[in-house]
Amino acid sequence: MSDPLVGVLMGSDSDLPVMRQAIDVLEALGVPSEVAVLSAHRSPDRAAAYGREAAGRGLKVIIAGAGVAAHLAGVLAAHTALPVIGVPVKAGPLQGLDALLSTVQMPHGVPVAAVAVNGAKNAGILAAQIIGAGDPEVRARVERYKAGLGTEADAKNARLQALGIEKYLRERSLTDSWKDAAPND
Amino acid sequence: MSDPLVGVLMGSDSDLPVMRQAIDVLEALGVPSEVAVLSAHRSPDRAAAYGREAAGRGLKVIIAGAGVAAHLAGVLAAHTALPVIGVPVKAGPLQGLDALLSTVQMPHGVPVAAVAVNGAKNAGILAAQIIGAGDPEVRARVERYKAGLGTEADAKNARLQALGIEKYLRERSLTDSWKDAAPND
Amino acid sequence: MSDPLVGVLMGSDSDLPVMRQAIDVLEALGVPSEVAVLSAHRSPDRAAAYGREAAGRGLKVIIAGAGVAAHLAGVLAAHTALPVIGVPVKAGPLQGLDALLSTVQMPHGVPVAAVAVNGAKNAGILAAQIIGAGDPEVRARVERYKAGLGTEADAKNARLQALGIEKYLRERSLTDSWKDAAPND
Amino acid sequence: MSDPLVGVLMGSDSDLPVMRQAIDVLEALGVPSEVAVLSAHRSPDRAAAYGREAAGRGLKVIIAGAGVAAHLAGVLAAHTALPVIGVPVKAGPLQGLDALLSTVQMPHGVPVAAVAVNGAKNAGILAAQIIGAGDPEVRARVERYKAGLGTEADAKNARLQALGIEKYLRERSLTDSWKDAAPND
Amino acid sequence: MSDPLVGVLMGSDSDLPVMRQAIDVLEALGVPSEVAVLSAHRSPDRAAAYGREAAGRGLKVIIAGAGVAAHLAGVLAAHTALPVIGVPVKAGPLQGLDALLSTVQMPHGVPVAAVAVNGAKNAGILAAQIIGAGDPEVRARVERYKAGLGTEADAKNARLQALGIEKYLRERSLTDSWKDAAPND
Amino acid sequence: MSDPLVGVLMGSDSDLPVMRQAIDVLEALGVPSEVAVLSAHRSPDRAAAYGREAAGRGLKVIIAGAGVAAHLAGVLAAHTALPVIGVPVKAGPLQGLDALLSTVQMPHGVPVAAVAVNGAKNAGILAAQIIGAGDPEVRARVERYKAGLGTEADAKNARLQALGIEKYLRERSLTDSWKDAAPND
Amino acid sequence: MSDPLVGVLMGSDSDLPVMRQAIDVLEALGVPSEVAVLSAHRSPDRAAAYGREAAGRGLKVIIAGAGVAAHLAGVLAAHTALPVIGVPVKAGPLQGLDALLSTVQMPHGVPVAAVAVNGAKNAGILAAQIIGAGDPEVRARVERYKAGLGTEADAKNARLQALGIEKYLRERSLTDSWKDAAPND
Amino acid sequence: MSDPLVGVLMGSDSDLPVMRQAIDVLEALGVPSEVAVLSAHRSPDRAAAYGREAAGRGLKVIIAGAGVAAHLAGVLAAHTALPVIGVPVKAGPLQGLDALLSTVQMPHGVPVAAVAVNGAKNAGILAAQIIGAGDPEVRARVERYKAGLGTEADAKNARLQALGIEKYLRERSLTDSWKDAAPND
Repeated sequence: MSDPLVGVLMGSDSDLPVMRQAIDVLEALGVPSEVAVLSAHRSPDRAAAYGREAAGRGLKVIIAGAGVAAHLAGVLAAHTALPVIGVPVKAGPLQGLDALLSTVQMPHGVPVAAVAVNGAKNAGILAAQIIGAGDPEVRARVERYKAGLGTEADAKNARLQALGIEKYLRERSLTDSWKDAAPND
Repeated sequence: MSDPLVGVLMGSDSDLPVMRQAIDVLEALGVPSEVAVLSAHRSPDRAAAYGREAAGRGLKVIIAGAGVAAHLAGVLAAHTALPVIGVPVKAGPLQGLDALLSTVQMPHGVPVAAVAVNGAKNAGILAAQIIGAGDPEVRARVERYKAGLGTEADAKNARLQALGIEKYLRERSLTDSWKDAAPND
Repeated sequence: MSDPLVGVLMGSDSDLPVMRQAIDVLEALGVPSEVAVLSAHRSPDRAAAYGREAAGRGLKVIIAGAGVAAHLAGVLAAHTALPVIGVPVKAGPLQGLDALLSTVQMPHGVPVAAVAVNGAKNAGILAAQIIGAGDPEVRARVERYKAGLGTEADAKNARLQALGIEKYLRERSLTDSWKDAAPND
Repeated sequence: MSDPLVGVLMGSDSDLPVMRQAIDVLEALGVPSEVAVLSAHRSPDRAAAYGREAAGRGLKVIIAGAGVAAHLAGVLAAHTALPVIGVPVKAGPLQGLDALLSTVQMPHGVPVAAVAVNGAKNAGILAAQIIGAGDPEVRARVERYKAGLGTEADAKNARLQALGIEKYLRERSLTDSWKDAAPND
Repeated sequence: MSDPLVGVLMGSDSDLPVMRQAIDVLEALGVPSEVAVLSAHRSPDRAAAYGREAAGRGLKVIIAGAGVAAHLAGVLAAHTALPVIGVPVKAGPLQGLDALLSTVQMPHGVPVAAVAVNGAKNAGILAAQIIGAGDPEVRARVERYKAGLGTEADAKNARLQALGIEKYLRERSLTDSWKDAAPND
Repeated sequence: MSDPLVGVLMGSDSDLPVMRQAIDVLEALGVPSEVAVLSAHRSPDRAAAYGREAAGRGLKVIIAGAGVAAHLAGVLAAHTALPVIGVPVKAGPLQGLDALLSTVQMPHGVPVAAVAVNGAKNAGILAAQIIGAGDPEVRARVERYKAGLGTEADAKNARLQALGIEKYLRERSLTDSWKDAAPND
Repeated sequence: MSDPLVGVLMGSDSDLPVMRQAIDVLEALGVPSEVAVLSAHRSPDRAAAYGREAAGRGLKVIIAGAGVAAHLAGVLAAHTALPVIGVPVKAGPLQGLDALLSTVQMPHGVPVAAVAVNGAKNAGILAAQIIGAGDPEVRARVERYKAGLGTEADAKNARLQALGIEKYLRERSLTDSWKDAAPND
Repeated sequence: MSDPLVGVLMGSDSDLPVMRQAIDVLEALGVPSEVAVLSAHRSPDRAAAYGREAAGRGLKVIIAGAGVAAHLAGVLAAHTALPVIGVPVKAGPLQGLDALLSTVQMPHGVPVAAVAVNGAKNAGILAAQIIGAGDPEVRARVERYKAGLGTEADAKNARLQALGIEKYLRERSLTDSWKDAAPND
């Protein structure tokens, strides 16, 4: 496998079921990535070192997911000039609103690119788009991926028109992707 | 001047005092940009066309700022595979919380990279970082910019140690940048 | 069946269990409708075309339901002069507050008529009221429907007075409509 | 003047500076309206009577604006089968968030069509769209109005391209409409 | 049984499991009450009549519980000079925050006495306190009730000291009141 | 003057401009009151003593206003069986939302009757309603007061019909009550 | 066992499953503590006495956990000059946001040291840090504890690198600590 | 002057007018402190070094104030076993709610002691209380300070009783501390 271009980090291994969606979509888009558990608060020196060394190791983008007072993305952004994508992870009683504000409300000079709460899949796509800014092949794969979304939506609509609501819902409830669909529009 | 690499869009010309900060910082970082007023709701076809043609015209990143039900970044993202950065603009009674959620909570498949409410300056820096992923010269300029932030913070601290609080505050209040400093950390 | 007067759209087929309540109440009120899965972000051209062609195809009202950064109703409203009703759908960690603000906080000039989070049933009634503005027969059906709500509330109260709390609650828990009652007043 | 088709109500005369925007846009769209101060809490019988008699008097739509615990639109909707548009008015320490939730979160069976906080102008446009559902002439005027929004946005953009940011902002600040522009996108 | 002094109203029979706690505590405090299902939106004339006739029928206090856009308490308060207690009921996606703001944020001149979300038990105690303002016997019963709360808290503490945490928790989990304890302090 | 029936307390003298509205309306309703500055946190023993002695001194109702973590009403309620009305006062960056939740969300057994943020006037009216539950003369005064609200609303509406919007707004802006009107409906 | 240095208080025994985490971590850090159920509202005199006597009894820190209108920590802080740590406990429909604001937003002069919603474990660590300010042995134990957190994070990361995501998640789901991990970063 | 025991840090010099209140109250309580401008994002290595060296340099407590995505306190806490007090500073459109959640919602293992938004004065008092845990003289000064708060509240109340409301407010408005009083209770 090629050298990783994207580092997918998370503050706790309990974030892994969410954050792996970034890794999966990056793989589908042909972008090699690496994964690490790395806490802004429990292993701060390792986090700082990761940030400092990332560009030198050939990484192009960092994705950092964390819950509650989600400082991980901001700490990474403090130590690298690479673009950092922050994924607020839903955790604890405030359901991710705390993580969202901690991630997105960065001060002047040190941006983090925030995606939706639990939006790890979109973080992966965004990372591929960023790499695509300098790599036409990746950009073409993202374009095909986004076109595919339209095709899928069209197919669902066609199926709904063909089956009618009752039958569509009955067949739909047999698939396992139903519950995982949100966030969607 | 070179061809623009970043399109800085806004839903209303009342967003211009905020959004020009993106243009200014891009200029400081040596990244050519263009600006347009373009509404997701009032001029939707022009917005869609802008998205569809952006990559072909050589743009690498789109920055879209909007207030209240801020749909502009999402609509752009629907029409291009380029990375789209969304700036929620503070406007109206809800102070930008509405624009923040409308911008960041994008559904699976169509990411927007959100920055802080009124965070246009960071949107510009993020755009430069994205371009830097494929352009070592731009990346070097971003690195120098971020290093400069540290130097500036160090200088302020040194000055505070030298002058003491009373004198520092007295001299500080004579400059016009005081009120505009937030969001900062 | 007659030609549809109301288009009931949704951004994802996972919204269908909520949105079908609009279709059901429209049927009960004798207003023909059509249904479609149509995403502002994944199939934007189809969404724009739907908006542009709606009036010409004889539609009188559009209902659009979406969750998270719910842009669908706004995008439809950008492409048609027909009244557009937006249904914020509860989805994801923020429970529909994001969808509510994205739907209701539309900018000057391009209104969306928002109903409650998951308020698809009310969206259907509102669509019938709008059609009733130009169709006395539909208005009469809405009047009968609303009168029926009072009769139903009166009957529940009479039953509660007759049975007492304990017995009322015991019999109530045997029916399947209990959980689905909210939003109610 | 023709008989009024829209009743524009408000809970307090302090809402008048906001609510008059509905009346003004209705006049611009050629839809006759009437205005009244009418409180759900201080003059409830007059409010109920207004609702009961509205359809018989020839009204087609009711617009009701109120702040804080904004019950006015809901109370009207309880007494009429006409479509009722609710305008949450910004008032008091919670800045209209209370009025928004009180207006939009109506229970099953009794919809209110909510617009943005202080969105009285959009309420007027929506009322014209509703009347346009049964009146092609009004619909044509709404279409022209919405087309005009696009033209205006295009003109602003053209002017910005011609003048550049500095000069545009300087000339812009001389007009009095600048501050009133929000909510916009 | 004596004539009722307190009317316990609710907008929907789905509120009954919450609102019956008011009735139960009133009974425990020797205050006779009556119960009714009565909607501000579905049976507005009955609600208005209830308010107008309440004082004449000998009622001293009205308790009104409702969810979402909870207008019931405000509508009652518009039709009576008796004190009205509002209970925001948790219902729907916003979890009662909408009902709380709709209930408590009443305009000048027409107060509602709001208690916590789902705080029907406290509404009953408050009603007894209000009646106790003119009835020493009821006041004495409330005093004994509140003293009993202290005794109960003391007993729990003594038991915890005697058993230790492990044993206390084991025995505690065998009782059915555990989950229902919130809201508590 | 008669002995006070209502104690109007506040945590800080900075709350006095808001809380005096309770005293003024009580005076207008012929209910004697007393006023005190009394902090749950800075003078807790005096606060506890006030609560313990209130009923014995002949008080019938306590009104307690406080901002931020507004504990004052709850602390009073812990020390008396009299009804306690809480006024959340707008203070500090969170604008009274903190005070509202601290005041209204009381645990089972110890109610506080909350009014709107800065709703001191309504607190005074509510106190009079409570006293009116045992005093027909006070109740009659409250009834006249509430009837007067309707008359005032009717008069404003009549004036608006007579003058038209332009003239009404011009004359209205000359009075000093305009800005103070919120919270209103 | 030594005399307790920390008092761990809670407003209700339903808070015990959360608050015991403070006691457990204090034990692990070698800091003796005591526990009590003690309500600001139901047993206010006992709460006040606890505060007044705490320093004299040799306590160094008080931890107070409470839900909803969480006044307990503030009431303790009113009666002692010892540092008081407040734990907002998740309880009731607002999920702890009410308790958080009631705990943290204390007025000038009477601080409470707030931790996260349900953050009892951190309250225990913070108490040990405070005691460590005057006790080098305790401080050393806290240092070892915090170093251990880093070691644990490193070990999890090493294990993830060794096993890969699939295998790591499979083995992880067999342990019972998975769900309880939040709040984490 | 003695060696500093408390480090008062802030992320930006625009926080100085708020944060100096901590320094002032520490001085009043006889606790020597030092001040520094130190950003988690712009000067991360200096921040980390400060945390690592703080205990060795004799500091006992760290106070860290920051606005928006306020990571500073958390980053300090990651690098020291000393107690860290976080002050969320009001800055930017979200008014400090973002800073509050970023500061208080720390993950298990790494506590921050949060005070109110802009609560720097209380942070100073809390720091003195922490030092007082090991220093009887400081504790005695805090006790005198807190007793003084009660005396001041008593004096204000006595003055209000003597002057009456009108006269009290007139004299009060002549002092400059009126507006700055919040947060208070």
